[in-house]
Amino acid sequence: MTDQERTPDTDAPDNDVVLTSRARIARNVAGIPFVHRADEVQRKQAIERVLPSLNPSTCSEETEWFDLESITALQRRVLFEKNLISRQHADLRGPRGVAVARDGNLSMMVNEEDHVRMHAIAPGLQPGKCFERVRQLDKSAEQKIEWAFHQRWGYQTACPTNSGTGVRFSAMLHLPALRLTRELEKVRQAAKDLHLAVRGYYGEGSESSGHFYQVSNQVTLGCSEQELLDRFMKTIVPGIVNYERSARQALLRRDQIAIEDRVQRDLAILRSARVIKVDEAMRRLSTIRLGVCLDLVQDVPLDRLNRLFQQIQSGQLQQTAARSLTPPESQAARATLLREQLAGQ
Amino acid sequence: MTDQERTPDTDAPDNDVVLTSRARIARNVAGIPFVHRADEVQRKQAIERVLPSLNPSTCSEETEWFDLESITALQRRVLFEKNLISRQHADLRGPRGVAVARDGNLSMMVNEEDHVRMHAIAPGLQPGKCFERVRQLDKSAEQKIEWAFHQRWGYQTACPTNSGTGVRFSAMLHLPALRLTRELEKVRQAAKDLHLAVRGYYGEGSESSGHFYQVSNQVTLGCSEQELLDRFMKTIVPGIVNYERSARQALLRRDQIAIEDRVQRDLAILRSARVIKVDEAMRRLSTIRLGVCLDLVQDVPLDRLNRLFQQIQSGQLQQTAARSLTPPESQAARATLLREQLAGQ
Repeated sequence: MTDQERTPDTDAPDNDVVLTSRARIARNVAGIPFVHRADEVQRKQAIERVLPSLNPSTCSEETEWFDLESITALQRRVLFEKNLISRQHADLRGPRGVAVARDGNLSMMVNEEDHVRMHAIAPGLQPGKCFERVRQLDKSAEQKIEWAFHQRWGYQTACPTNSGTGVRFSAMLHLPALRLTRELEKVRQAAKDLHLAVRGYYGEGSESSGHFYQVSNQVTLGCSEQELLDRFMKTIVPGIVNYERSARQALLRRDQIAIEDRVQRDLAILRSARVIKVDEAMRRLSTIRLGVCLDLVQDVPLDRLNRLFQQIQSGQLQQTAARSLTPPESQAARATLLREQLAGQ
Repeated sequence: MTDQERTPDTDAPDNDVVLTSRARIARNVAGIPFVHRADEVQRKQAIERVLPSLNPSTCSEETEWFDLESITALQRRVLFEKNLISRQHADLRGPRGVAVARDGNLSMMVNEEDHVRMHAIAPGLQPGKCFERVRQLDKSAEQKIEWAFHQRWGYQTACPTNSGTGVRFSAMLHLPALRLTRELEKVRQAAKDLHLAVRGYYGEGSESSGHFYQVSNQVTLGCSEQELLDRFMKTIVPGIVNYERSARQALLRRDQIAIEDRVQRDLAILRSARVIKVDEAMRRLSTIRLGVCLDLVQDVPLDRLNRLFQQIQSGQLQQTAARSLTPPESQAARATLLREQLAGQ
């Protein structure tokens, strides 16, 4: 998979605020204990039961399998940085792996918290598209695997909050204006009232670097997948999107020159720095992304910017360099990449 | 006087560290009380006694007279920003004025602390050149004015530290590397031991903005002008200059990429900012000046940079705009000037 193949659709809906949408399905293989209770042999069994479902002849997707036990720590890190596996999945020990579709927008983690977590991602606000893709994968897997299922409680999962449909939708939202206007706490409170989880760019426990907030439904039980999807796509996320858009317009009206100043400075810094840490780079890229969406920056394509948030991570820099880098070397490589990618057209 | 006329000599000696040299002569008119004891009538008398000495037929310099009582506050401010009058002279009340030579490098303040303070400035380390010019002015003035003079104590001045020769030499030193390496305190201590005064860019009590330090002899009594000059030019200032140069080379050796990063970022910021306060601009110009002297920046002429330290001051921005500016307007005008003047060649 190359980054080129993964280029998000520039016309993705609501992509001024919604970086990506995701749909995830959690499943467990009937007759094998949940991962946290399974021993090595049982975990291996889970993998053996799942792998045949990925056979190209029957699977809806062509995938590549990564055995997380045998690949290097750097390779695991890169998969994590690309949001193909969770931090937990990278850091765990024992038999586990991930199948990744060619375009890098679909993955199936095996032996993370559940035996199977299928996960699709799409640019902008289109969780329906993600759900369709991940549901197809689930359907073809079902032909080979019997999932743990309870007549009353639905699909069974290691954590009860995932039981029922086992489906979770999420959207990675870029909320720099709400952060600048200090209204983010209101969003957090509203999200809490709506039983949504709010996380950072790199999932649970990660800081909201780059002013990205991943919002997802916490409850997967008690309503149908379609109800969950409708509620998420038509009410919850659009509400936050509009709130962020209003905050952006308010900023422009209140002090356009200050916003321009901030955007132009950050762009100039990333076009000139010789060394830069990842947090600073995320923060400045975030401001530039705001500038692009407000049409204050014309010569940086949104797609390229979106990719940079991942490409500047240490693992990917090391993968590109094809060797391990010291922190100062990483900072220099990151600055070089940013200068090249953001060079004026 | 235009800034063009005032362009410093690019080949001025030691101009990597020495921004300007100055020589000043303090004199008082015999028979009139010192300024702080003189009433309005006596101060007017002092002016009347001094003005004829500026008559073009006998004066060594062609000058323009500014009556500080009748010009506007903005005009006084601009004279101050150009180092032609002191803050004290600008803020005082009562009859006072300044004669300024066409090239803006020589001035004669009347009724500042003393009746007369003649003051010449030159780029780089050439206090001898300044002294020669100011001495010529003093000589031609002496033909018309009798100075207060005491056989034993020499020229009499309002403050005893200026008595004797009444001559003071100073150099405006740019010491960013000593600041970065935190060795500036050593210089301050050494200066104190050598009875030197250390001030900021705008004289007594001013902060050392832009990492400029004005070093001058405090004692003017007990040795000849030539001895003062020799000591200052051949020992004191060259010592500090070499210390700063060593610090610059040490910085380069220790972490060249960090210095490059700092210089390139600051240049990029000043080439992009939409609003900027004077302190921030001074600080970033200082880093860029270091970069130019270390050959890390090729496309910004040192002269232009040197002029900017004054041109970005609020008074001069308002003079250029030909109207008074609010602080946000000043910040925007300053940013525009910097973008224009520092635009890549």
